[in-house]
Amino acid sequence: MLIVQKYGGTSVGSVERMKNVAARCLATARQGHQVALVVSAMSGETNRLLKLVNEIHDDPNDREVDVIVSTGEQVSVGMVALAIRAAGGKARSFLGHQCKIVTDSAFSRARIVSIDSQPIKDALDAGEIAVIAGFQGVDEKGSITTLGRGGSDTTGVAIAAALGADVCEIFTDVDGVYTTDPNVVPSARKIDRISYEEMLELASLGAKVLQIRSVELGMKYKVPIHVRSSFSDVEGTWVVPEEISMENVVVSGVTVAKDEAKITCEDLPDTSGVASKLFGPLAEASISVDMIVQNQAHDGTTDLTFTVPRGDRKRAVDLLRAQVPDLVGPEGQRIKFDDEIAKVSVVGVGMRSHAGVAKRMFQLLAAENINIQLISTSEIKISCVIARKYAELAVRALHDGFGLSLPPSERAGL
Amino acid sequence: MLIVQKYGGTSVGSVERMKNVAARCLATARQGHQVALVVSAMSGETNRLLKLVNEIHDDPNDREVDVIVSTGEQVSVGMVALAIRAAGGKARSFLGHQCKIVTDSAFSRARIVSIDSQPIKDALDAGEIAVIAGFQGVDEKGSITTLGRGGSDTTGVAIAAALGADVCEIFTDVDGVYTTDPNVVPSARKIDRISYEEMLELASLGAKVLQIRSVELGMKYKVPIHVRSSFSDVEGTWVVPEEISMENVVVSGVTVAKDEAKITCEDLPDTSGVASKLFGPLAEASISVDMIVQNQAHDGTTDLTFTVPRGDRKRAVDLLRAQVPDLVGPEGQRIKFDDEIAKVSVVGVGMRSHAGVAKRMFQLLAAENINIQLISTSEIKISCVIARKYAELAVRALHDGFGLSLPPSERAGL
Repeated sequence: MLIVQKYGGTSVGSVERMKNVAARCLATARQGHQVALVVSAMSGETNRLLKLVNEIHDDPNDREVDVIVSTGEQVSVGMVALAIRAAGGKARSFLGHQCKIVTDSAFSRARIVSIDSQPIKDALDAGEIAVIAGFQGVDEKGSITTLGRGGSDTTGVAIAAALGADVCEIFTDVDGVYTTDPNVVPSARKIDRISYEEMLELASLGAKVLQIRSVELGMKYKVPIHVRSSFSDVEGTWVVPEEISMENVVVSGVTVAKDEAKITCEDLPDTSGVASKLFGPLAEASISVDMIVQNQAHDGTTDLTFTVPRGDRKRAVDLLRAQVPDLVGPEGQRIKFDDEIAKVSVVGVGMRSHAGVAKRMFQLLAAENINIQLISTSEIKISCVIARKYAELAVRALHDGFGLSLPPSERAGL
Repeated sequence: MLIVQKYGGTSVGSVERMKNVAARCLATARQGHQVALVVSAMSGETNRLLKLVNEIHDDPNDREVDVIVSTGEQVSVGMVALAIRAAGGKARSFLGHQCKIVTDSAFSRARIVSIDSQPIKDALDAGEIAVIAGFQGVDEKGSITTLGRGGSDTTGVAIAAALGADVCEIFTDVDGVYTTDPNVVPSARKIDRISYEEMLELASLGAKVLQIRSVELGMKYKVPIHVRSSFSDVEGTWVVPEEISMENVVVSGVTVAKDEAKITCEDLPDTSGVASKLFGPLAEASISVDMIVQNQAHDGTTDLTFTVPRGDRKRAVDLLRAQVPDLVGPEGQRIKFDDEIAKVSVVGVGMRSHAGVAKRMFQLLAAENINIQLISTSEIKISCVIARKYAELAVRALHDGFGLSLPPSERAGL
């Protein structure tokens, strides 16, 4: 088999841990597999470098910032390659510009355009373990780029896709994907198998174990992803194409996101073009709008509520006030906002064939006297915005209410 | 003018100092010059990285070590480019593989083969300050290489040569090249102008202000090198082609090297091929032999004495014992060694036209009762090996005896 193993910053956080990584990948290689590693910067290193940058400069989307920050992974690949050799194996490191992970030129959040995997294949065919720097690439002009936080997951899956690997193992400091955050709900269970679609929703909704783009890539190129602990040998969570049996599980996981803020524009004219006029300035400023809910109009006016990343809330309000005063009032009088919200969501491909999940969710929240402020649904998830102070309470109620503390086979219909 | 400025690790040792570098090169640019910078790693950074490496691995001549160590300069160029921009200038960083400093594949001590300076020229023509990583290059296979300690000097002069720059300014933490180490001889004087040949001897003999290879390159491509302080605006030392007036100065400088050891092989047969047989194993082991002195033979045997870097002395003795037991005895009985030596030297192009410098040197040492163990001479230098405990005494005696505490115009013939 050809196996890609991705190790996060915690897994290579010290020389001792790098030696563990070396031992683990060598054990895999000695079973007769070809192994390519993708490694992150040692934990804390990227933050150390960004702190240095911030002493001079405050725009992170800068060519030079990527030059600086990408050194974290560069040190890691060299060290891990040395560790493998010290343990008796053969290894060779690859930087983004060497293997050649070509991206666009969006510094600090670049997207992969292509990978020339031949140098890696040559190393594997020569019996070497390829140790590839995660998180980084190179644009068409040869400038170094980085893929954004968690970008090493994306590198891992992209490399697996380019090599046609049998699996991309994502080693991390937890032993898989859980039905919800075990820190909030101690009875949370590890999920054995989950579909890309569900994982995508969980990742979008705040489960931090896998970067969204890596899941998208895995889905697109059908790369089986195995999320597992770098500190143990137990099976973790397989993220794979949807299987028939998965539909029996109505709800796979419960998530909560606490990093958004809610903005409401009141008394908008109920005419065409209002929404595009309102969201135009935000899109231009690259503020990503998540949930959008528009009330049924009455008396010719309507309210429009949406959520944005909490860090962008002030900028969003300022932009609206400056650019569409005709809609929100010259002083922005008709804008209301609330930073103290949380978004709880339930996810599951089984929802497609089971009616009543939304009803059950609203019942469970109501039973705890939690008021629902906004609702948004997709085919396989339901999200509710609530007051942030109820976030943990809501997650526990939903997790227990949907029976997620039980093994899938023992859960009742709903 | 086109000016290359090279800043060492101390000059970019903190964010504050990087801002000084930015201010200085911007001041130069605002006088209408084109400016390319070459910068080293922040002081202490290369050692920090090597320490990390040593936790895993003890061979520094490894492809992966260069991958790791080269990140020091990578961080510096990004930071300095940001500092220039923060100060209102335009700047762009270049790594070894971007500008393209092609070297051989001798990791940790690579030599520059070629430079494709077009990307730098394009940046300069666009009004940008080019900020180039010192110390690093890339071999023909695209692997990252480093040039060895002090390699940023070499990068600076090589870039100046490739660009056809008018001058390569080497900014450092001292304000020029001195007649000897001012820490040993307080009356040491800064040298205003010195020839490449003299600088080469001074650098080989232990003056650490410029890397030897950078001087060789400067001489080969006739790049004027200006060694000066990054903390002041005073003129430093110009290293330039030899000028007529330089011959008036008989001795330009006195140096001392304390990092060598002396090995003597006694009672060697006085036959042809003995020396090559003896030095063959050392050459194969890349142990560089410095001074070699062979006695006049008598009774058919001769003694041969040479010096090696002190760190290689044990290895050298072991090699000789193992590989040429017929010459040195099966237990190496006929090998003697001494680690407690120093080599003091006087250097000056004026020696070519002034007889009696050697005689004067021996007199000055004898007057201090310092025994001379070995002597080696070149056209423009005389070196004596003495007991290490007399090193400072010898340097002071020679410095004063040759009148180096006086301005060149006031020095008597000898």
